[in-house]
Amino acid sequence: MIFEGSEKKAEIIVGPNLNLLDISDDFWSQLVEKAQATILSTINNENIKAFLLSESSLFVWKDRMLIITCGQTTLIKAIDFFTDRFGKDVIKQLIFQRKNEYFSHMQHSTFADDVKLLENKFSGQALRFGNIDDHHNFIYFLDQEYAPSADDHTHELLMYEISCKAREILTNESVTKDEIRQLLKLDKILPGFELDDFVFNPYGYSLNAIKDDNYFTCHITPQEECPYISFETDINMKEIADVLIEAMEPISYDFIEFCPNQDGSCGLNLKKEDYIAKTQVESYLKCGYIMYFSHFYKVRPNRLKPYKLL
Amino acid sequence: MIFEGSEKKAEIIVGPNLNLLDISDDFWSQLVEKAQATILSTINNENIKAFLLSESSLFVWKDRMLIITCGQTTLIKAIDFFTDRFGKDVIKQLIFQRKNEYFSHMQHSTFADDVKLLENKFSGQALRFGNIDDHHNFIYFLDQEYAPSADDHTHELLMYEISCKAREILTNESVTKDEIRQLLKLDKILPGFELDDFVFNPYGYSLNAIKDDNYFTCHITPQEECPYISFETDINMKEIADVLIEAMEPISYDFIEFCPNQDGSCGLNLKKEDYIAKTQVESYLKCGYIMYFSHFYKVRPNRLKPYKLL
Repeated sequence: MIFEGSEKKAEIIVGPNLNLLDISDDFWSQLVEKAQATILSTINNENIKAFLLSESSLFVWKDRMLIITCGQTTLIKAIDFFTDRFGKDVIKQLIFQRKNEYFSHMQHSTFADDVKLLENKFSGQALRFGNIDDHHNFIYFLDQEYAPSADDHTHELLMYEISCKAREILTNESVTKDEIRQLLKLDKILPGFELDDFVFNPYGYSLNAIKDDNYFTCHITPQEECPYISFETDINMKEIADVLIEAMEPISYDFIEFCPNQDGSCGLNLKKEDYIAKTQVESYLKCGYIMYFSHFYKVRPNRLKPYKLL
Repeated sequence: MIFEGSEKKAEIIVGPNLNLLDISDDFWSQLVEKAQATILSTINNENIKAFLLSESSLFVWKDRMLIITCGQTTLIKAIDFFTDRFGKDVIKQLIFQRKNEYFSHMQHSTFADDVKLLENKFSGQALRFGNIDDHHNFIYFLDQEYAPSADDHTHELLMYEISCKAREILTNESVTKDEIRQLLKLDKILPGFELDDFVFNPYGYSLNAIKDDNYFTCHITPQEECPYISFETDINMKEIADVLIEAMEPISYDFIEFCPNQDGSCGLNLKKEDYIAKTQVESYLKCGYIMYFSHFYKVRPNRLKPYKLL
């Protein structure tokens, strides 16, 4: 069964006239439906609301929302729904990302289609980080200045072709939440976080975790055709990534970092022993962040065998 | 302008009761139209007929045909047309290949769709050489023994992201055949070959070359969004590849080799200085060949800049 794990992602930052935490869950439920997803469960504290979705996650703070969706979702329509409700003047910055897909024929739109829709309302810039024939990441953001706070970092870690051992656990149809939490070593990497997770049938796992105003999210599609795991957080991922890469032993991974412009350069070096950095792309973006995209892979000494489809 | 250079390819080998050189050009013209391509020009000698197509090439020998098509062509329908005309009993072996695509949403079918159609008539095996998130190549062949002759080798060299210098020449809208022949050093690599080539408007170049029963073909789509050049031949490509890689300086290239099983292993080592072998997959196929797929890329010391889409 093919499932496109590759995510679309939107972050919308609003001005002080709108407090997104005041908005009813019913609105977020409608917004998520526009993307062809549904809310499975919710956790929250005084700073953040975290919705676990049928396809990934939605996080809401006072001044921003972050929605991540995978599969055949239509995230662009959720952005449209938000803008129709609140108008575009409340939006200080809008950042829309799409990972390169491996089954783009299954998608309702391409990144270029989505950008065309966004440009009906906004004026933005669109970039591709990485060559078309290599792992890459598309980003769109409004062509207007924005000054992120000094602690506004985002880290994304995307794994491909995880180890047989990890895949065996994750594709066991009777695997439990606890077994997956143990595999991911969540007690070690997320001390003090409140967890909300879900095991899909027959395969798949999603996790939201929050603590103060920080979030961590993980989505697993272990299907043999295209095993993929994504992690995203606003806490420092350096040590966490070490633990996760060691646990999953991916054949390759991408690491994406956003840091505020005043930092000068993205600082995490996520190259692990046995891995080669194939691609590293970095640029200052007018929306106030430096974006860094990288792709690493494990060197294999021997010729591989082909994968049998029929 | 996006153009999917990635090719589909079919080779059909027939038994002694059918001489494909006796078949009228009108039949080949109809076959090519089924794939949504047209014949631009033809050259031939006593062993081989070579048709240059609006989307790549068709070669016909007494006992085999080889069709290569790119863009949004429907090659699978040409195979169907051949089988409908001559029946499946004349077919000793059928090999169908598809390169991984970067704009699969623009295609009329996927490799899996094509295999489903083939399986209505035939019984075959389907394999993928290379990981789904890496350069890869799909192959389908009939589940029946075939013994290729000792000199039956095929070499494919596929280049991505060629040098700025080469791209400048190839995207010059008034470039001539001679200028492209010089860039490719055809006098050096194809001595004694008869050439048939075409410069497309605004961009693109196709070449068929034949000598005795040997062929060489080249197809160039230099568009900035996704520059791609493919070469295929049944002559030894070792020295030719050196010349071509030096001329085009691609950021990365794939090399695919088919050799008869009795050779034991595919022998060409096409790793050039400054390039790393990221992927190497090799396997014996029941259709009598050993297939080798490899992907090489040039190491870049510095962080790249993103590609501006808007």
